Amino acid sequence: MTEKKNVEVCFSPLSYSLFKSDDSIVVVIDVLRATSAICTAIYHGVKGIIPVADVNEATEYKNKGYLVGAERHGVVVSGFDLGNSPFSYMKPEVKGKMVVLTTTNGTQAIHAAKNAHKVVIGSFLNLTMLTQWLLDQDKNVVLLCAGWKNKFNLEDSLFAGAVAQQLCASEHYYTDCDSTRAAQILYKEAKGDLYGFLENSSHRQRLEKLHLEEDIRYCLTLDKAPAIPILENGVIVRLNPTPVLAG
Amino acid sequence: MTEKKNVEVCFSPLSYSLFKSDDSIVVVIDVLRATSAICTAIYHGVKGIIPVADVNEATEYKNKGYLVGAERHGVVVSGFDLGNSPFSYMKPEVKGKMVVLTTTNGTQAIHAAKNAHKVVIGSFLNLTMLTQWLLDQDKNVVLLCAGWKNKFNLEDSLFAGAVAQQLCASEHYYTDCDSTRAAQILYKEAKGDLYGFLENSSHRQRLEKLHLEEDIRYCLTLDKAPAIPILENGVIVRLNPTPVLAG
Repeated sequence: MTEKKNVEVCFSPLSYSLFKSDDSIVVVIDVLRATSAICTAIYHGVKGIIPVADVNEATEYKNKGYLVGAERHGVVVSGFDLGNSPFSYMKPEVKGKMVVLTTTNGTQAIHAAKNAHKVVIGSFLNLTMLTQWLLDQDKNVVLLCAGWKNKFNLEDSLFAGAVAQQLCASEHYYTDCDSTRAAQILYKEAKGDLYGFLENSSHRQRLEKLHLEEDIRYCLTLDKAPAIPILENGVIVRLNPTPVLAG
Repeated sequence: MTEKKNVEVCFSPLSYSLFKSDDSIVVVIDVLRATSAICTAIYHGVKGIIPVADVNEATEYKNKGYLVGAERHGVVVSGFDLGNSPFSYMKPEVKGKMVVLTTTNGTQAIHAAKNAHKVVIGSFLNLTMLTQWLLDQDKNVVLLCAGWKNKFNLEDSLFAGAVAQQLCASEHYYTDCDSTRAAQILYKEAKGDLYGFLENSSHRQRLEKLHLEEDIRYCLTLDKAPAIPILENGVIVRLNPTPVLAG
């Protein structure tokens, strides 16, 4: 049997440098709503997503004619086409298109992770497919929570706990990391009713003030967008886990 | 009624700057073992503890004739008098003395917090007295976990959860902070058997390799050292919560 692989949870991009990730697969997690939107977009046929860290860079792309999503503090930035509501990325007008995206937390986390062995995008919408794929890779895994402005948040930690639980239940993974244990315990408490569990969470309350209940319910639904978005040369594209072999 | 006060949990000194603390009481927490040792020392009659961040500074104090505790990676640094085992600080030879202390995580966290309104030291050994005192202060509270080398750890988070739970149960405190909620949930899971809950935690395993089971059991016992250590002009001394009034 090969050596067991390690799974670690990083609760905030601020502490990402403490995790060894050059040879790891990093899963970037921003459940409400950036990575849920990305999974939805990729599953529904968006060609690719260019994640950019700031609004100025997003503006440059817009001026070049790109379709651009820009969100800050939960709302679409004035003058841009889209925000980070997953429903925007199911529309026919985005299908087959390249989209540029900048968000408060999620795209920053993607940038932080860009030198990892591989960077993939996780959300409850692709939980089962993503976890199964990770189990097949035989690599150390860092689950990177985008959090809220570099602070811990519950929804990303719960998703990290869900993935960690499934990896650690297999004989190929272990953890020696307290944050991974904490995330698993929190997920165990929450999994029967994610929506109810997050009722008092800070970001859910923030989004509810903006009347985004429908977005929240969708983002907390399992396996609604079974596709794995992966970062390749700076662009997030759909991973084809079963390539067609030549011959 | 006065405005409700906020209680927040900071999981690592690395993210402490994200918390607003100039006008808050900061509780520094390093359960295994620095803040447990400090509570024990202050309760058992050590006159004061000078926390220093690095071993060089500790050496300077030693050369001046001070009694010095220095711990790195769980063991006493070669050439020093004491480490951070709480039992060392019950001995008659330290009673009434000024002690200098540097540890891997705890004294760094005390230094990070030094500009707060007040800095006090927390551990399971002074849980009830500390919480009661906090309830009487009418101030925002930041519970600062020392963690392990800037990463999240379970034992400090559990203690933060224990304090947060009691503060939030009163009508004078609230939280809008996801890490505070997470800490409370973890404590609820753990409180029936702290020792068993932490069985697989990374730092407990680290200390068990050094045969420190007795230290761990003591540090996880409630209210064994009911005193409140407080930082005053760079020295940790015993707070007298009921000053004798003149006249």
